[in-house]
Amino acid sequence: MVSTTIGEVGEFGVIRRIEEALAGQPSGGVHLGMGDDAAVVDVGPGKLLASTDMLVEGRHFRRDWSSAADVGARAAAKNLIDLAVMGGRGRTLLVALGLPADLPLEWVVELYDGIREEAAGQQVSVIGGDLVRCERIVVSVTALGELDGPAVRRSGAREGDVVAVAGRLGWAAAGLSILSRGFRTPRTLVDAHRRPEPPYAAAWAAAAAGATSMIDVSDGLVADLRHVVSASGVSIDIDPHLLPVDEPVRQAAAAFNADPLIWVLTGGDDHSVAATFPADVALPTGFLRVGSVLDPYTAPIPGEPVLTVAGRLPRGAGGHDHFLG
Amino acid sequence: MVSTTIGEVGEFGVIRRIEEALAGQPSGGVHLGMGDDAAVVDVGPGKLLASTDMLVEGRHFRRDWSSAADVGARAAAKNLIDLAVMGGRGRTLLVALGLPADLPLEWVVELYDGIREEAAGQQVSVIGGDLVRCERIVVSVTALGELDGPAVRRSGAREGDVVAVAGRLGWAAAGLSILSRGFRTPRTLVDAHRRPEPPYAAAWAAAAAGATSMIDVSDGLVADLRHVVSASGVSIDIDPHLLPVDEPVRQAAAAFNADPLIWVLTGGDDHSVAATFPADVALPTGFLRVGSVLDPYTAPIPGEPVLTVAGRLPRGAGGHDHFLG
Repeated sequence: MVSTTIGEVGEFGVIRRIEEALAGQPSGGVHLGMGDDAAVVDVGPGKLLASTDMLVEGRHFRRDWSSAADVGARAAAKNLIDLAVMGGRGRTLLVALGLPADLPLEWVVELYDGIREEAAGQQVSVIGGDLVRCERIVVSVTALGELDGPAVRRSGAREGDVVAVAGRLGWAAAGLSILSRGFRTPRTLVDAHRRPEPPYAAAWAAAAAGATSMIDVSDGLVADLRHVVSASGVSIDIDPHLLPVDEPVRQAAAAFNADPLIWVLTGGDDHSVAATFPADVALPTGFLRVGSVLDPYTAPIPGEPVLTVAGRLPRGAGGHDHFLG
Repeated sequence: MVSTTIGEVGEFGVIRRIEEALAGQPSGGVHLGMGDDAAVVDVGPGKLLASTDMLVEGRHFRRDWSSAADVGARAAAKNLIDLAVMGGRGRTLLVALGLPADLPLEWVVELYDGIREEAAGQQVSVIGGDLVRCERIVVSVTALGELDGPAVRRSGAREGDVVAVAGRLGWAAAGLSILSRGFRTPRTLVDAHRRPEPPYAAAWAAAAAGATSMIDVSDGLVADLRHVVSASGVSIDIDPHLLPVDEPVRQAAAAFNADPLIWVLTGGDDHSVAATFPADVALPTGFLRVGSVLDPYTAPIPGEPVLTVAGRLPRGAGGHDHFLG
């Protein structure tokens, strides 16, 4: 069967199909969604949280490795976990798409299905935004949400705090490595690359428990904790013996004769959560202690905030840089 | 002088330069801008308005035709006029960029300068969002704003209303035509393509005066009024003798042996404003009457809403479709 392309149905044909795909979703405070110049949204009495992320075909996903629904779920997850690590909850996702004219219409419909699947568990609504032509698929999602309490920032880590993580580390990196070598299994790791499972509930619990700082691990644990280090002006030491090296990651590394800790320390895209807690706080469910915020006397370079692993500075960037990488 | 590329300074080098470029701007209710997982914005007591638009290099702009500041100003203008035609005002722009690694760093800085220039007149703040690598430049802007009164929708046009437009018609289309033929003058028209001048104040005045429907003319007057026709379930007739054919547009058409009315009726990207008003409302400053909402007895096809020009159905799409066009 030859599938219909978006070039055949045209912009307004695509919009009609998206409107059908989005029918019956939770309102998420949306008074007016698609079909006018702007959406009208009720975000409630809290402060507004906003986050925006872009996925580009060939850089963040390949159509032969990920389904359209995977790409949609991932775009939604990236944004929703950004809100969760601030201590907030999503209300609405706005979607702008750049699409090639020969793309099957069904691909776009399934992308929206994936966005809705990820958003639905949180009663978040999806609003279709702009559609433009582009040689490669570009998925740009903006999440709007609500913050009831104070924002949990990157800058709040204090000496003596415990550093803890929730969610998977190294799974998506192992999955990408497997796909890059031409394999499709083990499925658990490949699926972790295709569709991350960010620990939303753990992030909300951390905010409620009084986390002093929090960040989602999108570029790698070392790279992202360095943001906490520089924003907070403190040093952090990771104890590699405390890092969770999950069995699938260990096995894949053994098969590739690789060090699983490299994936765990530098692999991005699992969208796990790293947070710091005062030492007397009981860690919320899902969090594992992996290190400490050092006091100035034990820091390796007094007065200069650094991220160390077992007391040593990791070599290299320690994670993903979109332009250097 | 060889300019520095973003590939040379890396993602976080680009972010530092953007932070410098955005320093000292109006707060626009932003409690927390760049540098954390999500921004925290105070949008005030009104309803939240949101609009998102994407510009793609090679489709919406060319780097040899438009400066980076032009592209930034246009991206901001497209979104801000979307909020204005709903009757609202912008507070904050979120920016996600896809950029090639060999792009000069200065191009990105100037893009943000252009966004700020367009936003500054309205006390709108700019928040840098995601930066990803992409072979072609993709500029995705989301505008967040505030709506104090009721939304002016596309669906409110009523029989007997006056149809009026504010702003330029056909200027950007003439400018694009001039550039496409290898010319760079007349400058007024070329600049109209590079950097539209949406009639924000006229849109706000129209909302205050009780406009029954409003839309920004981004795809062409005929194409965009057709959205009003189908959303409102009414027919609209445009009187071509009432259409403003401005002198630069008339002269360019004469030079190209073209009909200026084609540009005026189907040219997009001027981001002028079309609105309908009850017949007894005095049109706000800047608006010209160009047609009428027909009563069912005089409509050309009774019971079927259509857009006509001098009583006739225009041939063709009457404007731009991103995938068919």
